[in-house]
Amino acid sequence: MENGQWKMSNEKWELIEDFLIRFIYEEITKTGLKKGICGLSGGIDSAVVAVLAKKALGKNFKAFMLPSQFSSSSSIEDAKELCKKFDIEYEIISIEPLLNAYKIEDKVRLGNFSARMRMAILYDKSAELNALVIGTSNKSELMLGYGTLYGDLASALNPIGDLYKSEIFEFAKYLGVPESIIKKPPSADLWQGQSDEAELGYSYSEIDPVLEDFVDNRSTKKELLQKYDKYLVEFVLKKVYQNQFKRKLPIIAKLKSRTIGHDFLYERDIRL
Amino acid sequence: MENGQWKMSNEKWELIEDFLIRFIYEEITKTGLKKGICGLSGGIDSAVVAVLAKKALGKNFKAFMLPSQFSSSSSIEDAKELCKKFDIEYEIISIEPLLNAYKIEDKVRLGNFSARMRMAILYDKSAELNALVIGTSNKSELMLGYGTLYGDLASALNPIGDLYKSEIFEFAKYLGVPESIIKKPPSADLWQGQSDEAELGYSYSEIDPVLEDFVDNRSTKKELLQKYDKYLVEFVLKKVYQNQFKRKLPIIAKLKSRTIGHDFLYERDIRL
Repeated sequence: MENGQWKMSNEKWELIEDFLIRFIYEEITKTGLKKGICGLSGGIDSAVVAVLAKKALGKNFKAFMLPSQFSSSSSIEDAKELCKKFDIEYEIISIEPLLNAYKIEDKVRLGNFSARMRMAILYDKSAELNALVIGTSNKSELMLGYGTLYGDLASALNPIGDLYKSEIFEFAKYLGVPESIIKKPPSADLWQGQSDEAELGYSYSEIDPVLEDFVDNRSTKKELLQKYDKYLVEFVLKKVYQNQFKRKLPIIAKLKSRTIGHDFLYERDIRL
Repeated sequence: MENGQWKMSNEKWELIEDFLIRFIYEEITKTGLKKGICGLSGGIDSAVVAVLAKKALGKNFKAFMLPSQFSSSSSIEDAKELCKKFDIEYEIISIEPLLNAYKIEDKVRLGNFSARMRMAILYDKSAELNALVIGTSNKSELMLGYGTLYGDLASALNPIGDLYKSEIFEFAKYLGVPESIIKKPPSADLWQGQSDEAELGYSYSEIDPVLEDFVDNRSTKKELLQKYDKYLVEFVLKKVYQNQFKRKLPIIAKLKSRTIGHDFLYERDIRL
């Protein structure tokens, strides 16, 4: 990455696509299940995941559009266009009745509650269909903690959690995601006109190089300050540190010799 | 532990009580917050947590009773009795309107959805009050996976996650939790007459010694089979292994040099 421009060759995206398709297929089938589902917001992250999941699972993948009265009107249309182009089965379930059943005035709290209602519906549908929930959070969101804990951050497996938002744009182009989805400004779409970059105060093309330098290249704060704007560096590090709790299990008070999250740490797929 | 009888001296419970009160106070205050909340079901686990949290946080602790139309009638009365005895502030919010807004016939799916509605309300209230959500899952439930992922298993900190259910009974007696709560059969109370032990097929006094031997004493399956009933051992090990996913973060496809859940593994409270 140079100056916030991600330059990945098509050959590299081909390898990544192949790896992620295998990841989705293998992580689901090794549990004994065959199916996967994900939420489809009309945004670029869930579009990329849906395309990969369709390629991995074929007819065993289904997308769920879960709009509220606050979603932007184009979201469903964009999601439908994607499903048509990639022959993805989908179902639309409005969360409006749930939001009417528990009234919240505050915009941020309403946004987080909406994300948790969507999670609850996706998990209910996964039980109905014997499917696993495929996550759609990218690495920028996960590192900044820009997502709802036990809401959109909740899933069984996440194929794009190690790709920064700037890379998701490139990947979406490579995969043939419709222009309408690629071109729209990134938004959690929790209320009309919400913009990730306006809320964060920086664009992903500014944030992602700092994140990658810090997280993947292990640059120190001192090194980062030599290369990037002081306020940007402070902002990114603060977000990463403050939101570490969103990337951890609940902390359990240790009383015994093997405690969950401390020293009972088997891999996910231990077998008898 | 001998023959399923947990024998912990009052001196030992005093030490554990002191440690857990400090745990709750310190884990909350070190985040810069002062307050804690938890759900109060009328059952023994949340009763123990509420008593500890009240002792740790005083007026900065609040309990939420979140009944549905399917909760047993005595649950609220038992929870109220506890709050009166320990001077705990509480609020009652019915999840009935939410369950009416998203209809589910299947009992198990309805139970899991209810648990997720309660989580969503608790997290919303935690945002309103600037509080952390204190978890109420015991080690037996966590190891067996007998709980709802992103529902009752979700919290910021859990003081009782390393105590088996059989120990929770002893601890509750030591703490002075009302008899009505201690005496009732363990139940997730997701529908009338639900019983943990009927659903599991074994009592906690049968299960817990096997769990402790396996998890904390690191006994092998062969060793367990020499000491306990074959079907009980098979049952416990199968549950522990099958539900490992409930004790792990969503699995992220690894593409970079530091990936969340793989090798980006800072402690919960990293600071700038």
